[in-house]
Amino acid sequence: MTAEPDHNAQQPERTVISVDAMGGDAGAAAVVAGIYKSARKNPDIGFILHGPRSELERLVSRRKILQGRVEIRDAPNVVSMEDKPSYVMRHGEGTSMWSALESVRNGEATVAVSCGNTGALMALSMIRLRKLPGVDRPAIAVLWPSRNPQGFNVMLDVGADIRADAPDLLQYAMMGASYARNGMGLKRPRIGLLNVGTEQHKGRPELKAAHDMIASQAKSANFDFVGFVEGSDIPGDLADVIVTDGFTGNVAIKTGEGTASLIGELLREAFRYSPLSRLASVLAITSLQRLRKRIDPRRVNGGVFLGLNGTVVKSHGGADATGVSAAVKLAFQLAQSGFSKKLAERVASTASVTQDAETQPVSPQND
Amino acid sequence: MTAEPDHNAQQPERTVISVDAMGGDAGAAAVVAGIYKSARKNPDIGFILHGPRSELERLVSRRKILQGRVEIRDAPNVVSMEDKPSYVMRHGEGTSMWSALESVRNGEATVAVSCGNTGALMALSMIRLRKLPGVDRPAIAVLWPSRNPQGFNVMLDVGADIRADAPDLLQYAMMGASYARNGMGLKRPRIGLLNVGTEQHKGRPELKAAHDMIASQAKSANFDFVGFVEGSDIPGDLADVIVTDGFTGNVAIKTGEGTASLIGELLREAFRYSPLSRLASVLAITSLQRLRKRIDPRRVNGGVFLGLNGTVVKSHGGADATGVSAAVKLAFQLAQSGFSKKLAERVASTASVTQDAETQPVSPQND
Repeated sequence: MTAEPDHNAQQPERTVISVDAMGGDAGAAAVVAGIYKSARKNPDIGFILHGPRSELERLVSRRKILQGRVEIRDAPNVVSMEDKPSYVMRHGEGTSMWSALESVRNGEATVAVSCGNTGALMALSMIRLRKLPGVDRPAIAVLWPSRNPQGFNVMLDVGADIRADAPDLLQYAMMGASYARNGMGLKRPRIGLLNVGTEQHKGRPELKAAHDMIASQAKSANFDFVGFVEGSDIPGDLADVIVTDGFTGNVAIKTGEGTASLIGELLREAFRYSPLSRLASVLAITSLQRLRKRIDPRRVNGGVFLGLNGTVVKSHGGADATGVSAAVKLAFQLAQSGFSKKLAERVASTASVTQDAETQPVSPQND
Repeated sequence: MTAEPDHNAQQPERTVISVDAMGGDAGAAAVVAGIYKSARKNPDIGFILHGPRSELERLVSRRKILQGRVEIRDAPNVVSMEDKPSYVMRHGEGTSMWSALESVRNGEATVAVSCGNTGALMALSMIRLRKLPGVDRPAIAVLWPSRNPQGFNVMLDVGADIRADAPDLLQYAMMGASYARNGMGLKRPRIGLLNVGTEQHKGRPELKAAHDMIASQAKSANFDFVGFVEGSDIPGDLADVIVTDGFTGNVAIKTGEGTASLIGELLREAFRYSPLSRLASVLAITSLQRLRKRIDPRRVNGGVFLGLNGTVVKSHGGADATGVSAAVKLAFQLAQSGFSKKLAERVASTASVTQDAETQPVSPQND
């Protein structure tokens, strides 16, 4: 896709992504720069862009490639990072975030992207898109740099809900497997349940119950269950999907991010230490850039809200054009694979299991 | 302490550490090499060394500096890494681990060091040393590389118990503060309570209750309570002591360790990539070694069991001489500062608070 096709030709098969232009730290300019980046690379994406019309028209009109591929929806208000979710739920109408979800709600798009306030976005998504039948607790899934062949693991939940009982954890396993299949192209993802040890007798009672429920569904739901995994397996190669409650998952990713960022700082310090080390850093710059790219959070930018009627990709609040473009790419993959619909079917097929805590087999499906 | 004093002179004021010579991956040789390292650096340490007498006598006799400073206690059996804690509790007598704890139990030493099986060591410590009056759940505290002036944070509990209610978390705060004062020399440690956000309304109910209990004790117990902290603050500079339950703490440290180890691997890969990057790595070698030393887990080797009648330093199972020596150094600091006794007094003074969930002030003490 290096050749530049005529992006302005009518392409009725374009996959439309609903994008909240506001609410990120860098404002609408970064978002428009991000969708421009995506549009250049991929002629099959179209956009519905939500925010103040005049500002968006000005930004979009500067990028020729975006002409005819972006539909602007005027939304004068913005959800700020400081707004309380409860406030946004009551007064969020008229914001770009609300409007972006509306396009998913009314079926114009199956996936929405926003860089805004996570708590508000989850709260609005819950009331506007509503939970899938059979899902008690939606989850946020993130990608995490790992030793896997694909370079990343999926982990969920990382903070949609601080609680999760055994049926919730089973749902996370099903949703995570579906996400790994549709978002990462893994035919038969390996699912691990996060615990403090790998022995079957370890951990909290709900983990032991979830272990058995997930194990019983593995065959029919077409994933491999590797059993309990530990924190060290999150960046490892034992599982493709790490299932945990939102409290533990949130602490784990923030600890991992903080550790990575501390090491990065210390590495820069180490290379500034002496003239010799500064010379070394110049020689090593491409190697170091390669490493940085490998673990760059912008490349895996996009927590995904799962368990709703429609899919929401939450991009990092501080996302620049590269970050927004990565989130759009993920949204496109999910939209094109029909992920939202497949996930709904998958969850419906196991709803009886999670509600009755029984182990009724479901028909194997590749979704 | 660079000059070499006469180590064999009678020094009745020597601080005696009880050391389990067996159970580590590298066997008694690494442990004896480790105590040799410590003995050379610090003339004030004496040792009681537990394990098979003939093997230990052979190893100790090779190191002149250890003559007259090591008392060997014959313990023919070894707790292996595979032994179940429940088995060791019933059949552990005669093992070097049991014997090492016995020296603390009978008052010959106030701190024991072991590289053995963590679960077995905690189980044996619980039944042989017993919990301090007022402590419901002992905790394991570790040091974690951070942006703090001292270079490390204390985190507890990292796996002694997967549960912790609000009074337990208060005890962890008190014990962690005491440890930071006596093990790290911080006069007024800053305590943070791990949560998924820093707002007061966030998190599980027991965290909100613990927040108020810890806040009410901060002044009288002579620490600063910085409130809720997040996973990113574990390697940060907001707090010196991170308080959490053993499930979350265990997942967090393993995630952090795994992430650090993945980055290390990728860094080595990056430097092997091309002739230029290999040259760069040669030039940068001292800088990289400095970084490695800064985050070397062997330097912070030693989880500490808190809340027992006596203190147990758990060294890494794979510890080499450097790792054992670091654990011995920590044990020495704690023993010399009278930590075990101070901690017992501190816990006793707050036992009424934790048992009644009331907020009775205790007299300020620097322990």
